[in-house]
Amino acid sequence: MTEDNVLIVGLGLIGGSYAEALTKAGFQVGAIDRSMESIEYALDKGIITEGTVRLDKDFVSKYRLIVFCLYPNTFVEWIREHQDLIAPGTLITDVSGVKVPVVYEVQRMLRPDLEFIGAHPMAGRERSGVGNSDCSVFKGANYLVTPTAANTPSAIERCKELGRRMGFGKISELSPEEHDEMIGFLSQLTHCVAVSLMTCRETSEMAKYSGDSFRDLTRIAAINETMWSELFLLNRDVLIRQIDLFVGGMEKLKTAIADGDVETLKSVMKESSLKRKLFEK
Amino acid sequence: MTEDNVLIVGLGLIGGSYAEALTKAGFQVGAIDRSMESIEYALDKGIITEGTVRLDKDFVSKYRLIVFCLYPNTFVEWIREHQDLIAPGTLITDVSGVKVPVVYEVQRMLRPDLEFIGAHPMAGRERSGVGNSDCSVFKGANYLVTPTAANTPSAIERCKELGRRMGFGKISELSPEEHDEMIGFLSQLTHCVAVSLMTCRETSEMAKYSGDSFRDLTRIAAINETMWSELFLLNRDVLIRQIDLFVGGMEKLKTAIADGDVETLKSVMKESSLKRKLFEK
Repeated sequence: MTEDNVLIVGLGLIGGSYAEALTKAGFQVGAIDRSMESIEYALDKGIITEGTVRLDKDFVSKYRLIVFCLYPNTFVEWIREHQDLIAPGTLITDVSGVKVPVVYEVQRMLRPDLEFIGAHPMAGRERSGVGNSDCSVFKGANYLVTPTAANTPSAIERCKELGRRMGFGKISELSPEEHDEMIGFLSQLTHCVAVSLMTCRETSEMAKYSGDSFRDLTRIAAINETMWSELFLLNRDVLIRQIDLFVGGMEKLKTAIADGDVETLKSVMKESSLKRKLFEK
Repeated sequence: MTEDNVLIVGLGLIGGSYAEALTKAGFQVGAIDRSMESIEYALDKGIITEGTVRLDKDFVSKYRLIVFCLYPNTFVEWIREHQDLIAPGTLITDVSGVKVPVVYEVQRMLRPDLEFIGAHPMAGRERSGVGNSDCSVFKGANYLVTPTAANTPSAIERCKELGRRMGFGKISELSPEEHDEMIGFLSQLTHCVAVSLMTCRETSEMAKYSGDSFRDLTRIAAINETMWSELFLLNRDVLIRQIDLFVGGMEKLKTAIADGDVETLKSVMKESSLKRKLFEK
């Protein structure tokens, strides 16, 4: 065991990409996954040095840094049931796309000799599984650290350092509440919009005429239904508020169109053009 | 005057791109625009051989093929006021993004010795003006011809041939009604969605965390407010119906989220993933 050993729990798309990035950064990376096939794939690819499908205290307790790359509810359950396997003094982090319901719950029940700090790598792909993992998706992407009053400055710094060494473009710190509000709007609402565009009417006849606009707006409509249902429900109140704001915007446009109210239409579009500039890369 | 002379009326982004594509295809291209600067730019660039800012019968009547690259209402007004300038037997086409209110109105009032056939090049850019024109945007794009009972087979064929020679990827024929229904959904609704996403709440603090999803969904939120207000209002009833369908989809998702109804969420997302496959390039 050295300072630079990391255990990845959950070798999916993100777990595999973390393993690759951390190995490249000089860490020795171990992994636990339910699938022996995933472990073997990662060993073959050289992105982990050891792996197991068993929950074994000798194995887990070798590590002082553990990254949980599981779906949020599975992660919380893992901690509830198996935290006795973890060595005292270990720092735990995660990759969950929602923070408020995960971070406070884990911190509340965690043994006092362990520390958990939430993190969210804002990167992904339309495909899942370790076989599609690729740490180049982290390049230029945002790595968000969401500390609470329960976190130590050294843990916050170690967590940020992890993001830096994996090659993320930007490391930011924000509260779990700020995180979930932002992600509810930028990510969850946009997925709802794409899904609704894709399913709200018969479109098979239209596919052949589609230009880039519709394609861009529905790229994320090909969606992992298990993960996103879980993320939506964990951020329920925030997401419903974003949907209401957005639908209010649609209704405002609809009223202006119905009334032939060119001035309102133009003024909303001017505001839109202006605000979009802030989001240019 | 030869078979391969074309007059472009309106040298903006699309007019300029048409001029470039047609010149490359071997046509001799003339142009009329309100701005002498635009004419001079196009002459300098070699994408037209002659141009004028005046409405002159000697100039206009040299051409037996005229493409109107104006906003829809401006085009209809032009025909109403100046069709006496056009030589008998001339074929007229356009580039308007809505068809029902343009095509029938122009065909109704046009002199019986002229023929108008609607067309819509589904290509564009976020910028406007002849200075941003570039006929490479037509490559792979859809060129839609919207004939009515008033059109002759030879005019339909000539119009399609124009699209082919400009390098469009796909030439299709559909009725003005089918066109407006499709464009109301694929193009106008998506622009409403992007504008509403961009304006429905305060976002300046969020810009630094934005990933590709939000950026993709709001690329078209930088929008020409004059042109799009006109297009929305000309297709008012169709567009309002698309907004209602889409908002209905958002409300369905919202209800499922509020009720914790995982089965509905998953089933809508599965449908979404499946339907999106038809739109892959």
